[in-house]
Amino acid sequence: MNVLVINCGSSSLKYQLINMENEQVMAKGLAERIGIDGSRLKHEIEGRDKVVIEKEMKNHKDALKMVLDALVNEDYGAIKDMSEISAVGHRVVHGGEKFSGSVVITDEVKKALEECIDLAPLHNPPNLMGINACQEILPNVPMVGVFDTAFHQTMPKSSYLYALPYELYEKYGIRRYGFHGTSHKYVSQRAAEILGENIENLKIITCHLGNGASVAAVDGGKSVDTTMGFTPLEGLIMGTRCGDIDPAILPFLMEKENLNASDLSNLMNKKSGILGLTGISSDFRDIEDAAAAGDEKAILGLETYCKKIKKYIGAYMAEMGGVDAIVFTAGIGENSDVVRKEVCKGLERLGIEIDEEKNKVRGQERIISTENSKVKVLIVPTNEELMIARDTAALVK
Amino acid sequence: MNVLVINCGSSSLKYQLINMENEQVMAKGLAERIGIDGSRLKHEIEGRDKVVIEKEMKNHKDALKMVLDALVNEDYGAIKDMSEISAVGHRVVHGGEKFSGSVVITDEVKKALEECIDLAPLHNPPNLMGINACQEILPNVPMVGVFDTAFHQTMPKSSYLYALPYELYEKYGIRRYGFHGTSHKYVSQRAAEILGENIENLKIITCHLGNGASVAAVDGGKSVDTTMGFTPLEGLIMGTRCGDIDPAILPFLMEKENLNASDLSNLMNKKSGILGLTGISSDFRDIEDAAAAGDEKAILGLETYCKKIKKYIGAYMAEMGGVDAIVFTAGIGENSDVVRKEVCKGLERLGIEIDEEKNKVRGQERIISTENSKVKVLIVPTNEELMIARDTAALVK
Repeated sequence: MNVLVINCGSSSLKYQLINMENEQVMAKGLAERIGIDGSRLKHEIEGRDKVVIEKEMKNHKDALKMVLDALVNEDYGAIKDMSEISAVGHRVVHGGEKFSGSVVITDEVKKALEECIDLAPLHNPPNLMGINACQEILPNVPMVGVFDTAFHQTMPKSSYLYALPYELYEKYGIRRYGFHGTSHKYVSQRAAEILGENIENLKIITCHLGNGASVAAVDGGKSVDTTMGFTPLEGLIMGTRCGDIDPAILPFLMEKENLNASDLSNLMNKKSGILGLTGISSDFRDIEDAAAAGDEKAILGLETYCKKIKKYIGAYMAEMGGVDAIVFTAGIGENSDVVRKEVCKGLERLGIEIDEEKNKVRGQERIISTENSKVKVLIVPTNEELMIARDTAALVK
Repeated sequence: MNVLVINCGSSSLKYQLINMENEQVMAKGLAERIGIDGSRLKHEIEGRDKVVIEKEMKNHKDALKMVLDALVNEDYGAIKDMSEISAVGHRVVHGGEKFSGSVVITDEVKKALEECIDLAPLHNPPNLMGINACQEILPNVPMVGVFDTAFHQTMPKSSYLYALPYELYEKYGIRRYGFHGTSHKYVSQRAAEILGENIENLKIITCHLGNGASVAAVDGGKSVDTTMGFTPLEGLIMGTRCGDIDPAILPFLMEKENLNASDLSNLMNKKSGILGLTGISSDFRDIEDAAAAGDEKAILGLETYCKKIKKYIGAYMAEMGGVDAIVFTAGIGENSDVVRKEVCKGLERLGIEIDEEKNKVRGQERIISTENSKVKVLIVPTNEELMIARDTAALVK
């Protein structure tokens, strides 16, 4: 059984075709600049050269057609015929309170997703466009929606409610949802496997540190808290997102700089984070290079970024009453030994000690804590696509 | 030497006259509804009946005159003559980055305080009114300003910077300042005394839980982090303040409910917190009573409130690399065994264990952790007035 995994952004479509017998990626790629000048498809088959096809794509339907053409192409395709695609799994950012797990997409589900647009105005519309395009082109193939928010639906009310008037929760659904759920779920399960333990007996803190970043507290395999909230802005410092701030800064800035709602969103989502703080870059590799070269702002940025993660690790240790394993994943988490080291520095009294030699590795599944460390620290490269494919295969069977 | 301690709000003036030889309170009271109908002075001398004097007070100068009249009154006064007041200590909420300790008030200091008004528009103007009134009526008495923010000026940059564009820090001073500094300083010093340890060797987490509430991380006697930030809104859930929320909620609400800057401030500062969450009351005693009677919203409110404190304790343990003592203070911290118990519940694996019997106490200085608890947990009633008087006496000597 082959599952096509689709992840649509506003002008992009990422895909992977996965053979579920052996869980191997048969092909993967990215259609980018959809609806913009210079659109192109980057397509790749395991172990072969990448193909780049430049061609106009007016919309997600055009993009999907190109993807399918590439998948069945004689030269660089992975399958002979579209009938070899048994199911499509869609990443959907926001499932609101309606979805606590993945679902087969029906008209009802689509309607529910449309109702969530208010909560994720930037993310859910392209996700829906991808679903619609697939349904038009592959009308008889079952589709599954896998939600970034679903894994966190196990959070207790005391973790997800804000201390705002309760009516705002009832009226608009203003509460913490959490994101990156598919990743937190995957790496926590994988960590339990690596440790040879039943996840039900483990308290795990997972640090998904990519361009977006969040930490989750996973107790017995269930998310009990996470740093992202109503939107993916809350919590950690990210590439261009500010994370937690005193919310009173907003009315202050509205008056001082005459900002409106969209200016504020723009400021907090696009101009802040490690970019805003350092003025250097939103790319962590640039920050590390600058810090290594002695740039003071970069050093400070790195310190501030890591301190925030460290504090959430402590917060979740207290919340769960301890921790057995800490997992680093996603771009920065998997690749930056500097960040992992700085985050764990000084936590020895809390039972967390990493082995500097073992830590010197990029993107490799590995235990990096010392033999004596009470808390195991691991790198687990995330694989959201595989999780989506697994859920999809399970649901359509 | 007698020091008069003054704490002015927009329509109130609290005072204590303290004899610095024995640090005893000679008289204390509150002028309230200043500039409003029904203004009155409540005046009290240790061990005697309270006096309530109802009389029009147009402004803080009127109020201060009444206070001084009461202090020298033949029947219910504490001193014979105003010359027995050697110095006045003023509580000032916001000292910005200019003051890292208490100062003798000069024209220059007053100018600097005026420059801080932008940062504390609600608090600094009445503080300044109190200073001006005192200078008019007691022109030859030295005055000292003691700042709520000063103790936290030792925070490193990585604790006080937000991941917003750095220019906003340079242009407007948008950074974390922290408040309740006088209280955090007092109770951390007192905790070290009670434990018979040198504070320089201790890592202490102080929980000031009153109508406003904040937690501070005090390492070697110095504040290295605290939950309140640019304003006293950030951090914990308070009586009517929301504390930390996803800042993206604000632009969302602006568009949905057409709110302006002052509506947002009002919502977050006056209608949120435990009041907004439960719909019951901003007074914690009401919440505890309702929870004891089985009210679900009250139980949830209590849980959510305590979880937030617990998480900050964990965060600061990680930040300091451990903790030796946790201190509860202020109205709720000193009096609520329910809150202290709930905050410490489940922290045994982190070395924190309270003795339920010892915990059953109100407003009394006491160690409430078990003999075996690695981390000492204490109740230390705060005494900001005494701290202000001490600083004042030291500076005018």
